[in-house]
Amino acid sequence: MATLHLENPRPSVAALAAPLVDNLVANALALRLGVSRSPCGARLVDAGIAVHGGLEAGRRIAEICLGGLGAVSLATSGRFARWGTMVTVTTADPVIACLGSQYAGWSLAEGDFFALGSGPARALWAKEALFEELGYRDSADHACLVLEVDRLPPDVLVARIAEECGIAPDKLTLILTPTSSLAGTVQIVARVLEVALHKTHALHFPLDRVVDGIGASPLPPPAPDFVAAMGRTNDATLYGGDVQLFVTGPESEARELAEGLPSSTSRDHGRTFAEIFTSYKGDFYAMDPMLFSPARVTVTALETGRSFTFGAFHDDILERSFA
Amino acid sequence: MATLHLENPRPSVAALAAPLVDNLVANALALRLGVSRSPCGARLVDAGIAVHGGLEAGRRIAEICLGGLGAVSLATSGRFARWGTMVTVTTADPVIACLGSQYAGWSLAEGDFFALGSGPARALWAKEALFEELGYRDSADHACLVLEVDRLPPDVLVARIAEECGIAPDKLTLILTPTSSLAGTVQIVARVLEVALHKTHALHFPLDRVVDGIGASPLPPPAPDFVAAMGRTNDATLYGGDVQLFVTGPESEARELAEGLPSSTSRDHGRTFAEIFTSYKGDFYAMDPMLFSPARVTVTALETGRSFTFGAFHDDILERSFA
Amino acid sequence: MATLHLENPRPSVAALAAPLVDNLVANALALRLGVSRSPCGARLVDAGIAVHGGLEAGRRIAEICLGGLGAVSLATSGRFARWGTMVTVTTADPVIACLGSQYAGWSLAEGDFFALGSGPARALWAKEALFEELGYRDSADHACLVLEVDRLPPDVLVARIAEECGIAPDKLTLILTPTSSLAGTVQIVARVLEVALHKTHALHFPLDRVVDGIGASPLPPPAPDFVAAMGRTNDATLYGGDVQLFVTGPESEARELAEGLPSSTSRDHGRTFAEIFTSYKGDFYAMDPMLFSPARVTVTALETGRSFTFGAFHDDILERSFA
Repeated sequence: MATLHLENPRPSVAALAAPLVDNLVANALALRLGVSRSPCGARLVDAGIAVHGGLEAGRRIAEICLGGLGAVSLATSGRFARWGTMVTVTTADPVIACLGSQYAGWSLAEGDFFALGSGPARALWAKEALFEELGYRDSADHACLVLEVDRLPPDVLVARIAEECGIAPDKLTLILTPTSSLAGTVQIVARVLEVALHKTHALHFPLDRVVDGIGASPLPPPAPDFVAAMGRTNDATLYGGDVQLFVTGPESEARELAEGLPSSTSRDHGRTFAEIFTSYKGDFYAMDPMLFSPARVTVTALETGRSFTFGAFHDDILERSFA
Repeated sequence: MATLHLENPRPSVAALAAPLVDNLVANALALRLGVSRSPCGARLVDAGIAVHGGLEAGRRIAEICLGGLGAVSLATSGRFARWGTMVTVTTADPVIACLGSQYAGWSLAEGDFFALGSGPARALWAKEALFEELGYRDSADHACLVLEVDRLPPDVLVARIAEECGIAPDKLTLILTPTSSLAGTVQIVARVLEVALHKTHALHFPLDRVVDGIGASPLPPPAPDFVAAMGRTNDATLYGGDVQLFVTGPESEARELAEGLPSSTSRDHGRTFAEIFTSYKGDFYAMDPMLFSPARVTVTALETGRSFTFGAFHDDILERSFA
Repeated sequence: MATLHLENPRPSVAALAAPLVDNLVANALALRLGVSRSPCGARLVDAGIAVHGGLEAGRRIAEICLGGLGAVSLATSGRFARWGTMVTVTTADPVIACLGSQYAGWSLAEGDFFALGSGPARALWAKEALFEELGYRDSADHACLVLEVDRLPPDVLVARIAEECGIAPDKLTLILTPTSSLAGTVQIVARVLEVALHKTHALHFPLDRVVDGIGASPLPPPAPDFVAAMGRTNDATLYGGDVQLFVTGPESEARELAEGLPSSTSRDHGRTFAEIFTSYKGDFYAMDPMLFSPARVTVTALETGRSFTFGAFHDDILERSFA
C-alpha cells in the first residue's frame, strides 16, 4: 500500500516570497515604487516616502509579508454603511504565514532610527522566542524584510540585518511602507488574521492546534498624522475585523479561545485607538495589549464541528475613527 | 471580408487543468498536501487524510475540478449574519466546466471501497449518458480525478481508472478530499453553480441554451461526522446558495426554469439536510433529488433581457446546520 | 545616502497589456472568442458577435482595457437585494489606467460604421486633448484597441487605426464587444472608476492630484435592445456604483469634489437611463453629461486624512432598469 508524506518538513517563506519580490521590483514603475541600492548594496523599495505607491502596491507587499503563503484581495461589501472596501486574507498555512513571517516582531534600532521588521527575513534571523515555539526556521541565501517607516534606514543597520540573516547585503531587499501611506494602510490592515493568531498565542492556546483561518477588515483611509494613521489601521481590525479560526483539540478550549479573542474582552474596548492612546498620554505600553484583536471571532472546533462566535462589529466607532 | 471562427471545437479540460495540477503538486509542502505514488504508479494527492490540507488547497482543487475553466474565490460578505465567508464561482464556459468536468458523475467501486469521481478525467472516460447530451469528450495522455474519500483507493481500482481513461497509470493523478476536511468543504461548496446546472438538466432544459452563469455560497465549517459534514456542505447551497444563469430561447422558458430551480420547490425544503436524512432513516435515495439546488436562482433570458428570480436565503436554517 | 528613483518615467500600457492580449487569444477556444485576421492583417477578436464570449472573457478584456494596470474581479455581495454580483476595479495607477487607456475616447468612423475606441492603443495615437493634460503618451510597435460594436469594422478603418498608431497592421489587435453581449456588459461596468475620473476631469480637478481610487458596481443582466443594454450598464454605475478617490491638495477641494461627483448632482438623476433617453427623444447629447458618474462617491483628502461621502445607492431604480 502507498504511504503518504507527512507534513513535517516546512515550506521556505524566503523561497516562496522571492518571485513576488522580483515581480514587485520588475513592476516598480507601474506600481509607483522607488527602487535603489543602499551603500552596502541592499535593495531598497520605497512604497510611499518619495513616491506615491498605492493600494495595489500595498496588496502585493502584504502577500510578500505573508511569505508567499497567503492571498490578499480587495473587494466591495455591504457590511459597513460607508466603508465599502474589505480586505480579505487567506493563507495556505496560517501560523507560518502570519506568525513565522508577517508578524512585525523584529525590533531594529540604530541611533534615533527605530523600526519593527516583518516578513520572510524574520524566519532566517529566527531569534525571536516565538520561533522556538513555532519549531520553524528558514534557510536561504536571500531575504526580504518590510519596515513600517517613513525614512530610509541607516546603512549600518541595513548591513547588520543582512549579517543577522547570514546573507550578502546585495541579497537583501528592504521594503519601506510608511504608516500614513496607501501601501502601508493596506499591508497593516492585511494583518487582521495575524493579530488574531498573535492573541491566540498570548492566551496560551497551542499554535500547532490552529489548522486554518481566514480574516477580513474594512480598508480605512490613510491619515497624515502618525497616531491617527496607526489608530485607523488598528480600529479597522478592533471594530471591523472578522476572523474565523479552525482548531483541533477539545471543544471547550475552542469555546474558551473564541470567548477570549475579540477586542471586546479588553478594558480599553469601546473607544478609538487614538482616544485610548491620548487617555494614556501617548504611552503605547500603557494600553491593554489584549485590545489588539478582531472585532468578531468565530472559532470552529474541528473535533466536534461546533463553532463559537464572540464579539461584534462597531460601525459607529469606525465612523468616528475613519472620517 | 474576414470570417470569424465559430466555437465548434471545444477546449480540452485535461490540457487546461494540467498546469494547475502540476502547480498543486509543486506546492504540496506549502499547501500541506501529501503526495505519493500508488503501486501501479499513479500519483496520489492527499488533501486531508493524513495531512491537514486547508481552505486554500480546497480552492485550488475546486479550480482543477472545473477543468481549468473556472475561478473560485473566497471573500467576506455581509449577506449572512454569522457566516461571513462566501465562495464565488465563475467560469469561462459553465456547462463544460461544471457538467463536463466538475460534476461527481463517475461511480467507482472495488470491494467495500466506493467513491464518486469528479474532475477532468471524467471527460476522457466519457461513458456517462450526460456526455452524449453535452456532445463533448476530451482526448489527452494524462488525467486528473478528484475523489471525495477519507482513505486511499485500492490499487486495482486506481489501475482501472487509468485504463478506462486510456492512459498509462503514471499519467493519472488522483486527488483525495475527505468530506470532513477543510479542502473537501471548499471544493464541495464550490459546486453551487454545478448543482444549478445539474438540476437545469434534470428539468429537461436544453444545456446548449445555457450561455453563462455565476454562483456563490457561504463557507460552512467542516464537521467530523460524515452525515453532518455532507449536510452542511449541502445546506450551504440549499439555504445560502445564489446562482444566476443566462440562457437563450423564449422568455417563458427562462421564467419556468427560474421557477423550477430553487431548493424551495422541493417537498423536503425547510429542514436541514441532516434532519431530512434522519427522517428518511438514512436512506439518501428516499430524499427528493429536486431538493439539490441553490436557495435563490435568477435566470436571465438573453433573447428579451428579462430576469426572473425565485427562492430565498434562509439564514436561520444555515445557523441550525452550521453551528 | 541612497537616492530614490522618482516616478517620472511612466509605464507603457502597450507593454503591460501585451501578455494579457496574447493570453486572451491563446485561450480563445475556452473563452468562446472568435479570432481571425482582417484583410490588412490585423487580428480581430470577436467577443460576442458570432460567438458567445461570456462574463470571464469580459473580465479579461476589461483588464486589457485598463492597460495591464488594473484588476477586475467578480464576487458576491449583500449590498443590493436582488443583484448579487459586484464588479470591483482596482489599479496600480488609476489616472493612466482609466483615462490614459480605458476611457472610450477615440472616435472612429468610416461610412456608416461608427465606434468609440478604448484601451492601450489610444495612448499610442494620443491625439485626444486629454493626453496633453495627462502628460502621457506611449511608444510601442504593437497595439490593442477595444471597440464596443456588434459588427466587424471596415478594413480601411482597421488599416487606418494601425497607421495612426504608427504600427504595422499585423501588430494591431482589435477586440469587438457588443453592448448587448455578456463580455460587453462586464467591460462597460468595469468603467465605474474611469467614469468617476472622467467627471473629476470635467469638474476641473487636477488629475495629477488623484493618487489612487477603487470602484465597484453591480453586474446588470445584458439586454438585446441596444438602448436597454446601454441603459442598464449606465444605471449600474449611476445608481449602484461606489467609488473612493484619494487626492492631494486642500481638504476643502476634496470636499467640493466629493460633493460634485455623484450622479445625484445631475438634473436627470432619479430616472433610468432609458427613461431619460426617451424623454429627450433619443438625443444622447441632450442628456446632462454630468449625470455620468457613480451613485456614491467618497473622496479622501490625503493632506488631512478627512473623507467626504456624497450620493446614495438606489436599489429601486436598479430594479426598474435591470428587471
